[in-house]
Amino acid sequence: MMQTPLTMTQMIERAEKYFPKKQVVSRTASGIHRFTYKQIAERTRRLADSLTKLGVTKGERVGTLAWNHHRHLEAYFAIPCMGAVLHTVNIRLTPQHISYIINHAEDKVLLVDPDILPLLERCAPELKTVKAYIIMTDEKELPETTLSPVYHYEKLLAEANPEYRYPEDIDENAPAGMCYTSATTGNPKGVVYSHRGIVLHSMALGLADSAALSEKDIALPVVPMFHANAWGMPFSAVWFGTSLVLPGPYFTPKLLAELIEQERVTVTAGVPTIWLGLLKELDEGSYDMSSLRGVLCGGSAAPKGIIKAFEQRHKIPFMHAYGMTETSPLVVISTLKSYQEELDAEERLELRAKQGVLVPGLEIKIVGKDGEVAWDGAEMGELCIRGPWIASEYYKDERTEEAFRDGWLHTGDVVTIDEEGFVKIVDRTKDLIKSGGEWISSVDLENALMAHEAVFEAAVVAVPHEQWQERPVACVVLKEANKGKTTKEELFDFLKPQFAKWWIPDDILFIEEIPKTSVGKFLKMALRDQVQQEVLRKG
Amino acid sequence: MMQTPLTMTQMIERAEKYFPKKQVVSRTASGIHRFTYKQIAERTRRLADSLTKLGVTKGERVGTLAWNHHRHLEAYFAIPCMGAVLHTVNIRLTPQHISYIINHAEDKVLLVDPDILPLLERCAPELKTVKAYIIMTDEKELPETTLSPVYHYEKLLAEANPEYRYPEDIDENAPAGMCYTSATTGNPKGVVYSHRGIVLHSMALGLADSAALSEKDIALPVVPMFHANAWGMPFSAVWFGTSLVLPGPYFTPKLLAELIEQERVTVTAGVPTIWLGLLKELDEGSYDMSSLRGVLCGGSAAPKGIIKAFEQRHKIPFMHAYGMTETSPLVVISTLKSYQEELDAEERLELRAKQGVLVPGLEIKIVGKDGEVAWDGAEMGELCIRGPWIASEYYKDERTEEAFRDGWLHTGDVVTIDEEGFVKIVDRTKDLIKSGGEWISSVDLENALMAHEAVFEAAVVAVPHEQWQERPVACVVLKEANKGKTTKEELFDFLKPQFAKWWIPDDILFIEEIPKTSVGKFLKMALRDQVQQEVLRKG
Repeated sequence: MMQTPLTMTQMIERAEKYFPKKQVVSRTASGIHRFTYKQIAERTRRLADSLTKLGVTKGERVGTLAWNHHRHLEAYFAIPCMGAVLHTVNIRLTPQHISYIINHAEDKVLLVDPDILPLLERCAPELKTVKAYIIMTDEKELPETTLSPVYHYEKLLAEANPEYRYPEDIDENAPAGMCYTSATTGNPKGVVYSHRGIVLHSMALGLADSAALSEKDIALPVVPMFHANAWGMPFSAVWFGTSLVLPGPYFTPKLLAELIEQERVTVTAGVPTIWLGLLKELDEGSYDMSSLRGVLCGGSAAPKGIIKAFEQRHKIPFMHAYGMTETSPLVVISTLKSYQEELDAEERLELRAKQGVLVPGLEIKIVGKDGEVAWDGAEMGELCIRGPWIASEYYKDERTEEAFRDGWLHTGDVVTIDEEGFVKIVDRTKDLIKSGGEWISSVDLENALMAHEAVFEAAVVAVPHEQWQERPVACVVLKEANKGKTTKEELFDFLKPQFAKWWIPDDILFIEEIPKTSVGKFLKMALRDQVQQEVLRKG
Repeated sequence: MMQTPLTMTQMIERAEKYFPKKQVVSRTASGIHRFTYKQIAERTRRLADSLTKLGVTKGERVGTLAWNHHRHLEAYFAIPCMGAVLHTVNIRLTPQHISYIINHAEDKVLLVDPDILPLLERCAPELKTVKAYIIMTDEKELPETTLSPVYHYEKLLAEANPEYRYPEDIDENAPAGMCYTSATTGNPKGVVYSHRGIVLHSMALGLADSAALSEKDIALPVVPMFHANAWGMPFSAVWFGTSLVLPGPYFTPKLLAELIEQERVTVTAGVPTIWLGLLKELDEGSYDMSSLRGVLCGGSAAPKGIIKAFEQRHKIPFMHAYGMTETSPLVVISTLKSYQEELDAEERLELRAKQGVLVPGLEIKIVGKDGEVAWDGAEMGELCIRGPWIASEYYKDERTEEAFRDGWLHTGDVVTIDEEGFVKIVDRTKDLIKSGGEWISSVDLENALMAHEAVFEAAVVAVPHEQWQERPVACVVLKEANKGKTTKEELFDFLKPQFAKWWIPDDILFIEEIPKTSVGKFLKMALRDQVQQEVLRKG
């Protein structure tokens, strides 16, 4: 067979050649914009030419700090196809972490949305490798900024060569993208995606038994493009000629419902928090959702109630899935098997509430304390994953050896698997809190609290939350001398400058002692129960 | 990303783990047999163990001479997954060609169906590398045979280790299969399939916009498993947990219709000749075909009439596709684009009668006399293909350089491409005749005729045929001295011992002169018209 490499250039070229009329609907600060794939493909070449002229060379990283819109989509292809590496900066990180990851990735150029400028300006003094900033603005002129040197995205494109040609000698194992993921403690860890990994993952998204993404779809990725490549949806969509609807910054559930209705969206993807919001909107408003064939949900486990409400109340099929930044992300998806369709509604719901069955192309094993667990839906073990779109390391990070051992990614997620191979996430070995689809590190918060002079011990646990899935609550044991003196407010004030706003715990409870394991580790499970009782008691 | 190889072992393992209850329905000489994937997977391991015990080692070829049934399916996985190479011998070739390809591939072991034994016995004296014959019989005892040494498939399996483990160190570029394809002249040419190529092609078959093969399907490959791997359908089906219905030897249109009805087949694949036969059966009989979601048609262009009859008269969606042995085979498939669904019936039919749009993962270019042709549906050029499931050479064959140049496969097929990217096959640069989905070489027949002492010149052309798509008709210019003396019958008798029965021309016409091009080549196009007039005149 020919040794043609699996590289991403074929994707954008296919969109241009075979689907030039298909549309990308892009919402930005100034409203809705419509571009055809013919236009997107030309603009993508112009962007690659612009970046080349700015001195970006093969293998160098170009960062984006941007919402889901057409310019970000252009960066998604221009950067990898020119042989550089697309680093989607997670703008929900703290400025300290953002500075860290841009420096760690050694980003040479940054593309930034106007509303994210203030955040980037705070980071800029720390940045060591950035040679140019490109502002992705709708306005004719650049906004005021302390960044330098700055360029205007549209002006660069206007001056660029529309006939730019992507290099043809890209190796399929060359890096194409990277994304940092929050760690239990310390700085975020970088995951590098190869062309090969992205191409194979994109194929997997198009499989009839997976998300079945198709030219006939109109896809709305709500999941941010700075978050595991918006689950790879933009890549597959462009390759297959799927219409895209990109919701831009600061959307509300109402806006999403309107976009779905107006654009006749067929498939959308996001975290449970988003669907909870949409559900409320659908329950209260009056929308035509009949175009929707599927709501893809990942990032956290969706409660059964949401799934039931979507499927039974609103007749919208719900597709539960599981993945992580390290896995591109799709690993399992809850497509029912043919004979499971005959189960009664309650049994089907039970299955749909699981994360699903392994997609073709990957391998999993679930390792309990005595080796691989039984396929009985009860025995718990850590999910380990192997395959061509699974990361093999954290980028230049010694924490690689914690997670990547014996050729497997050890996810830290504790799961069961039933006799039909349906995986269900039950817990995490790491103690991260997942709020609105984003990780909050309990250990980081604990360490910060314990750095306060009045604090003896502190543990932070997750409490279920209707809107955000989970929110952190801190349990603090004060030093004897401080008991009854140090206040909650004092500790909140102490935390606030150190963390993003949404990391700050919902509550701080003063307790007498933190339950511990025999080896002195916090017994989080016991504490969680205790805190939940307390929260419930308080109402 | 991890460097996990794209190898076939994952396919059969996925079927066993995730779809153990799904069925393979297999028709053999003794009737219908039903096996679960759990059983098939164990039998496949046993076969791999048996072949290992017979001395088959990594990289060695094992041939099959077999119809579509469960044992052939087991060989499809046992042989590649043990690291050997599955050589599916095309039993429709002449005994001379069969001997040639078995010797050329250096098959070490042959698996053969009982009814194919007489053919193989004729070839056996010529075979230089075969160390063992395994007969795939339903009977308890082996049939009488001159082959030696012979083994009983079921007895070997009964004695084999069900816990056999496939090697884990297979390279994704290692050969997994091979298939010989008829040449314009001379011996058949071998195509070698790699694990990587088969894995990627199998994914392509599962894409929503391609054949969308799914666990929910019940797939009936009518196309023989000795013909371009039954278009890859068995590989994808096993990987995705699709139920398979394998029709065995000597089926009739009636039997196919009954199988589809009884087994609730959802998708089937074959050449136009098969569908013509089925159509006649459906028109005359009374069958419930409501389970069918698609009839995949390739190998030759299907006449519009067939497509219309299937879609309009029988409400069975027809999926036209194009590929060849060298391309695994899927290259283009006539899935309509979303906005084309709104065209009127006649326009849709026009599109469906084209071979379709390129599947994701491949590249094509269409080269006319002045470079790449316009996308206007009119300008003609040779279809050239590139991609990871396209052959890069003919196995140990100097004819490689005719077809593989500058990194592209030059197909010899003349096509047009319209503004939407729909490819339509219009002619062949090679002068093969395609009868019932199989090639007949006009040049070989011509050379044979011209070897007759009475013949001055001979040209063989294709004439359209209702059942077989095309049949050969020979045009012979006799030497002056033989005019009016040598008879048709004499020439038929001369040809018959040299060719398979179905290669023998339907007619031999004596003509005065063969029209030629300026450089003295036969002007086949003109001759074809002339012959068609003649055939029509005769009725």
